[in-house]
Amino acid sequence: MAADKSGTQPTKAQQIADELKAAIERGDYGPGDRLPGEKALAEQHEVAGLTARAALKILRTEGLIEMRKGASPRVMSFELIRRHGIKRLARDQWGSGKTIWSADERLPDVDQIAVSENVTPPPHIRDVFELAPSETVCVRSRRYLVDGRPVMVAESYLPQSLVAGSLITQADTGPGGIYARLTDLGHAPARYREEVRVRMPTVSEAARLAIPSERSVIKLARTAFDSEGRVVEINEMTMDSAAYVLDYEFDA
Amino acid sequence: MAADKSGTQPTKAQQIADELKAAIERGDYGPGDRLPGEKALAEQHEVAGLTARAALKILRTEGLIEMRKGASPRVMSFELIRRHGIKRLARDQWGSGKTIWSADERLPDVDQIAVSENVTPPPHIRDVFELAPSETVCVRSRRYLVDGRPVMVAESYLPQSLVAGSLITQADTGPGGIYARLTDLGHAPARYREEVRVRMPTVSEAARLAIPSERSVIKLARTAFDSEGRVVEINEMTMDSAAYVLDYEFDA
Repeated sequence: MAADKSGTQPTKAQQIADELKAAIERGDYGPGDRLPGEKALAEQHEVAGLTARAALKILRTEGLIEMRKGASPRVMSFELIRRHGIKRLARDQWGSGKTIWSADERLPDVDQIAVSENVTPPPHIRDVFELAPSETVCVRSRRYLVDGRPVMVAESYLPQSLVAGSLITQADTGPGGIYARLTDLGHAPARYREEVRVRMPTVSEAARLAIPSERSVIKLARTAFDSEGRVVEINEMTMDSAAYVLDYEFDA
Repeated sequence: MAADKSGTQPTKAQQIADELKAAIERGDYGPGDRLPGEKALAEQHEVAGLTARAALKILRTEGLIEMRKGASPRVMSFELIRRHGIKRLARDQWGSGKTIWSADERLPDVDQIAVSENVTPPPHIRDVFELAPSETVCVRSRRYLVDGRPVMVAESYLPQSLVAGSLITQADTGPGGIYARLTDLGHAPARYREEVRVRMPTVSEAARLAIPSERSVIKLARTAFDSEGRVVEINEMTMDSAAYVLDYEFDA
């Protein structure tokens, strides 16, 4: 790996960031508390302002602090959201509190719902559905908020021929949502695959999630199969990586 | 969110990065191919050299390109590793090829194995094990390589009183590994919880994984419970986020 032109600065900044993170974890700084600003931090650690700034930027990238121009940074009070991938297991079989990270399941609000029909799917979606070249999909696009903060955007794809005329093509899909409607249509999801990747946000992802461009997103693609093994839905989620703990619980 | 002092530069850099990513995805640039360097890219897009450099840095952060001083960047030839979280399901029940991202399961090599006994556990490990203040743990630390590239470091914690005198305290745990040994000890894992988070690397994580300090790591904490609900192992993994696709397959 080639050395950065900025030399050893990133490591020094990272060390300061690591120290500040430890202080936040220990509770020296609680939610809403102010951290030393760029100038104070630079003096304290006897480093350049740029280095102090880089350290604070790392904390902002991780979603630990908020920075506003002219004000010293403030510890975020946002609590991590726990997303359970596998819902069917009785949660009470598991020791409560036996989790590595503190995070609660919280129901997000939905805004920016859009439904489009007869859309030509992206190639990878077409492949997974095994659609003919002429076939199209219905796309349901949503944004999710927790405490007013955008935390996820999601695009759900369904074969047009499967869902045409059903409530799935409407903004309000009725009680039980699209999985209940797929069940009505004789294609109840029987199995799921969730694939998780991490990458930098695109311009539009960063804008819709209102995150700094340096903060990674979690890409979570959920594929639903009916009992015959047919793919009936693909849901591509893009999550603010600083907002979520993904949780999968399963038998050995 | 306060605007960066660098103004609109990150967005322009991001746009160029998005275009280059699309070109790599389309196959315009294949593994090992050279991309335009900083200077050529700046001329092509009529932007400052710093902006072109920032665009390339985004690709490097995502693990899409390698950059070496004095040479134009090269498309990485590393293939993503697919990690199946849930092993027990018959994989062949699932349509092969029906995955969103192309990634193969590949067995990593292990280097840097270290086993320590009678270690005072970090507070969150003590809590999850429900250990008394005087109790200690055995820690197994490993680094994993694929194609010679470090992709994961892992620290596995086990209650000292449970594993003392067993092969679990040795570098070579014997056939079947620590889960087979826990079974010999009458504490076969019956259930697992996997918790997934994403954050920036610490200084030492970035060094051990040999990743740029701007690239996120995936923190995956796997907790193993025996049939009585006792926590018998906690494995904290730190993964290069550019190397992995996590895959969970389960029944509805």
